[in-house]
Amino acid sequence: MTVAKHETSVRVRYAETDRMGIVYHGNYFQYFEIGRTEAMRSLGATYRALEERGFALAVVECAANFRAAAKYDDELRIVTIPAPAGRVRLRFDYEIWRGEKLLCEGFTVLACLREGKPVELPPEIRAMIGTA
Amino acid sequence: MTVAKHETSVRVRYAETDRMGIVYHGNYFQYFEIGRTEAMRSLGATYRALEERGFALAVVECAANFRAAAKYDDELRIVTIPAPAGRVRLRFDYEIWRGEKLLCEGFTVLACLREGKPVELPPEIRAMIGTA
Amino acid sequence: MTVAKHETSVRVRYAETDRMGIVYHGNYFQYFEIGRTEAMRSLGATYRALEERGFALAVVECAANFRAAAKYDDELRIVTIPAPAGRVRLRFDYEIWRGEKLLCEGFTVLACLREGKPVELPPEIRAMIGTA
Amino acid sequence: MTVAKHETSVRVRYAETDRMGIVYHGNYFQYFEIGRTEAMRSLGATYRALEERGFALAVVECAANFRAAAKYDDELRIVTIPAPAGRVRLRFDYEIWRGEKLLCEGFTVLACLREGKPVELPPEIRAMIGTA
Repeated sequence: MTVAKHETSVRVRYAETDRMGIVYHGNYFQYFEIGRTEAMRSLGATYRALEERGFALAVVECAANFRAAAKYDDELRIVTIPAPAGRVRLRFDYEIWRGEKLLCEGFTVLACLREGKPVELPPEIRAMIGTA
Repeated sequence: MTVAKHETSVRVRYAETDRMGIVYHGNYFQYFEIGRTEAMRSLGATYRALEERGFALAVVECAANFRAAAKYDDELRIVTIPAPAGRVRLRFDYEIWRGEKLLCEGFTVLACLREGKPVELPPEIRAMIGTA
Repeated sequence: MTVAKHETSVRVRYAETDRMGIVYHGNYFQYFEIGRTEAMRSLGATYRALEERGFALAVVECAANFRAAAKYDDELRIVTIPAPAGRVRLRFDYEIWRGEKLLCEGFTVLACLREGKPVELPPEIRAMIGTA
Repeated sequence: MTVAKHETSVRVRYAETDRMGIVYHGNYFQYFEIGRTEAMRSLGATYRALEERGFALAVVECAANFRAAAKYDDELRIVTIPAPAGRVRLRFDYEIWRGEKLLCEGFTVLACLREGKPVELPPEIRAMIGTA
């Protein structure tokens, strides 16, 4: 089953830059967070509602590759590509673009938790994202 | 009743600087947080233990004045001066120094909460910090 | 001369919350930064362009009062009110709203610098914001 | 040639936690930064001095795996293992421990830049860290 590719944007804050004049690498994970939050919202589920039902999605793995630097006040496009959902885990891949230039690629793997223990993802989340 | 003045130190992280090459002003409030956390620890109470008993100390007011910039890798001294405790509120004043140079002054006011509602500070916290 | 009141919005990131479940107080200064950046852009000047001409606007004073907490995924309105410009300094006042509820008020004072020294604001910035 | 394993520590700040009550995943990259900064300092070079000579070390790749969560006020050990230096790139591996529990593993790859262009690492940095 195919999954939807989602796109949103973010403008670089001064606070996100470092003294090299570029976005601090660790801050890209906040952009990725915006990407998957908005991707899930567009599919019909908010992460907030998931938490209100007692679930948490904890990041268990994350990575990023940097090809070019994002700078202060840049308007960036965040492309989020959800992978088919596992039973417990979700993976999202991300691309950060400035215009036609790809700046960064990365991914996060999230595990579904309830009271701190891994549990199966709610079925409607799996259906919504698609499964392998 | 006099209150103790407390001193600790912190080294500026690259992540805390911005493209002006100096510490982003909003990050000083993290230094202030380190100051009051360590001041309370030195007096015999940890904020963590307070939270485990169901209390929270929420910042209701904060301010800072900047006289000179802190830079990457600077070792800063954080001086914390607790004000006499109120019934519900605590105030801490702070100074950030690099060597003999005063870089920043500020304060925070915190309100004691329980289940989101203002409550009286535990008596031993008031005794520990001192009251007017 | 009257000055324009400006409004923009921001959605609370997970990264901006702390374990109290609310936005960490120090992060409001990033919302204020978004407010003044967009206020200046709407008036016809970008802070980025100002920097490219060799000027910097350094925060010399900042403060915030918190009336109610902002939570994860809240959509917040940032209201920015520029004060009449001084010769060297700019002051912006801010309000953060969630719907009809005022959550936070604050201000920042910024000094115009060139090569690290205070200098007069460029005349067109003063004209754009208005003077006393 | 063998390379030195380095160890330092950091205490978790309230600001670094998120509403799940644990350290936000993106903030581990700040702990990694502390690890490599102190590892380099212990070997006799500061990153700050390198920058003052016109070099920059830009993160071009980073990743982390999370096994267990770090919590507010935890005292964490940061273990940094520099890999043999390449001509242009440095790799550091990291482990984050709380007592005897391994919480997180990760790495960063940094490229040496001068005026934004990749250049060879200064020979003394390569000698200091060791080469393959």
